[in-house]
Amino acid sequence: MRIYLDHNATTSVRPGVVSAMTDMMTRVGNPSSVHADGQAALARVETARRQVGKALCARPEDIVFTSGGTEALNLALHAAISGGGIGRIIVTAIEHEAVAATALASGLPVEVWPVNAMGVVEIDWLAERLSRWNEADGKPLLAMMLASNEIGTLQPVAEATPLIRVAGGLSVVDAIQAAGKIDVDFAGLGCDYLTISAHKFGGPQGVGALLASCDAPMARHHHGGGQEKGRRAGTLNVAGIVGLATALDEAVGSLDDFAALADHRDHMAAALKAVSPDLIEIGAGAPRLPNTLGLSQPGWPGATQVMALDLAGFAISAGSACSSGTSKGSKIGTALGLAEAASQGFVRVSLGWNSKPDDADAFVVAWSAALARISPTLKASA
Amino acid sequence: MRIYLDHNATTSVRPGVVSAMTDMMTRVGNPSSVHADGQAALARVETARRQVGKALCARPEDIVFTSGGTEALNLALHAAISGGGIGRIIVTAIEHEAVAATALASGLPVEVWPVNAMGVVEIDWLAERLSRWNEADGKPLLAMMLASNEIGTLQPVAEATPLIRVAGGLSVVDAIQAAGKIDVDFAGLGCDYLTISAHKFGGPQGVGALLASCDAPMARHHHGGGQEKGRRAGTLNVAGIVGLATALDEAVGSLDDFAALADHRDHMAAALKAVSPDLIEIGAGAPRLPNTLGLSQPGWPGATQVMALDLAGFAISAGSACSSGTSKGSKIGTALGLAEAASQGFVRVSLGWNSKPDDADAFVVAWSAALARISPTLKASA
Repeated sequence: MRIYLDHNATTSVRPGVVSAMTDMMTRVGNPSSVHADGQAALARVETARRQVGKALCARPEDIVFTSGGTEALNLALHAAISGGGIGRIIVTAIEHEAVAATALASGLPVEVWPVNAMGVVEIDWLAERLSRWNEADGKPLLAMMLASNEIGTLQPVAEATPLIRVAGGLSVVDAIQAAGKIDVDFAGLGCDYLTISAHKFGGPQGVGALLASCDAPMARHHHGGGQEKGRRAGTLNVAGIVGLATALDEAVGSLDDFAALADHRDHMAAALKAVSPDLIEIGAGAPRLPNTLGLSQPGWPGATQVMALDLAGFAISAGSACSSGTSKGSKIGTALGLAEAASQGFVRVSLGWNSKPDDADAFVVAWSAALARISPTLKASA
Repeated sequence: MRIYLDHNATTSVRPGVVSAMTDMMTRVGNPSSVHADGQAALARVETARRQVGKALCARPEDIVFTSGGTEALNLALHAAISGGGIGRIIVTAIEHEAVAATALASGLPVEVWPVNAMGVVEIDWLAERLSRWNEADGKPLLAMMLASNEIGTLQPVAEATPLIRVAGGLSVVDAIQAAGKIDVDFAGLGCDYLTISAHKFGGPQGVGALLASCDAPMARHHHGGGQEKGRRAGTLNVAGIVGLATALDEAVGSLDDFAALADHRDHMAAALKAVSPDLIEIGAGAPRLPNTLGLSQPGWPGATQVMALDLAGFAISAGSACSSGTSKGSKIGTALGLAEAASQGFVRVSLGWNSKPDDADAFVVAWSAALARISPTLKASA
């Protein structure tokens, strides 16, 4: 019996999603086909598009379905830059590689918006930077998370986008960890692009969406058929899109339940800190996703914690799944200015829509036991 | 009760695929995660990779999973060009837009390898063209189908690739309509890249693969995590990949059954020609996919045929699904040098793995009745 506490890496597919997808897969039809079978498939896609629009406060026609968050982010940056005039990209210090690496690959200068000790970017930095913006810098392109994948901290997107807009720039919001976990309002955030990924909120892997404001530049990244009004070529993944919409609908309909995970999270953090007084709860005090707990136990490397807990039957992570197993590991510690030992001691515990009340308690017991076993070694090497 | 005869647009998902995917979706795990849940997901992906390799005679490590055929083709061309030295792209006159448009978007000069009246490219053209190749032309990049999506004709890939290799170039083979329908041997074809798409052989939409030879240049098209050994960023679509492999396994294991569709196809063609002596069977006499029938009824526009048959309960198409509904329509008629009336009269009828023996007979009755109804109008306007 394992306990899965790595829901930010990928979460369990909701049963209603599985049945909706199974049902779709018993039908045949390519939404690009003009006959009734194709049009029935298209109708399901358009229903899904309206569901997503309603859930995120966006116009259905501004939604482009993609193969996931990474493709959506690549498409957003590609589209923004294709409009011309962008001279520099500003990314926060805690962006996912799908933003950070894509920005670097663009060839444009990239500036990093630092986070404070709580893991939140401060709007004053952006205001100050934009006050020094030169015509020679071109227009700014801002790419920022709505919620950190690693520590869950919410970022001041709605405060940043007006500043970028006044400066004539564009903003891309990575809402991949936020959608389905907190209220996400595309219209209200004032950004030009926003991305989501189904498997983060109980939908299938392999499908996501880019929301692009009607006045934002758009340019396809893949060439081929005219799907998605020419914005994204490739046969539509009908079952996947229906799965995404079903999951988002369920998630947004149960945000109150998800918000209640914060109690379990906070109870877990308190219990762990009682066991280990030098344990750091990262982002404590900042507004956070209800399910995410970033921890650092100085001197006990995150990778070792993950292994010890895995043996005890618990799945947690030492950073984003996409950076797992790489030598770089999580960059969150560096971004937060943690000391080396604390930075290396980072782990993420993320609850999910189907986490049980006892899961957090069981984790506290297992983590404490693992720490007790390794403590003599840690003290000897300190 | 509808009869679906548009399996080249998308085919029915095999029941074994639905159950394999449903099973996968009840498990949780991101293959990039180092814990047991992640590693279990990764193990399923690697099993799928070996299945695909075995089915297509390729090394598992040369397979990159993508979101479908369009992404795989875009990635193939991007990777080939990234290696440097490619000066010109040769595409056949009947390539899908995912090849034709991507080649044009590269900015490199694109040359078109014409097809003969049967819808097949002739190797002499390529040999002659390469004999006139100048150093100033750079290296050639050839992109060609293994089997036409619209008329099913098989193209001489295995004859073309050695010529390209001798010329120092690279070849991309679009096997999207061929895989799971005829034997596809990546190693034997001698190409550098080959693409497949699951939903063409009974797998789910939204997943495909690029096979890239170990000595072929590779460059990611999306930036992000290090998935697929850095060749394709984005969380792996585990259920979709398992679905692709399951479908390919089933399809390749029943190629004999699929080959038997040719009898139904030929019977259908003969019956239709008996009804309408001026009906043209495109590609007759050429080696073809067993399931595909390209027809042209001069004077009866393909779009009108599709609508008439749709009302009668049959799904067929007037070209590739991706070009459906566009004003351009199918380019096959132009490529084959058909007269305008014949070119406009093109339709594709494609049988599938689950087509019933009676489907072809029923289609003949319905098509004949629709032709009889419209004949007075056609004659009046002729």
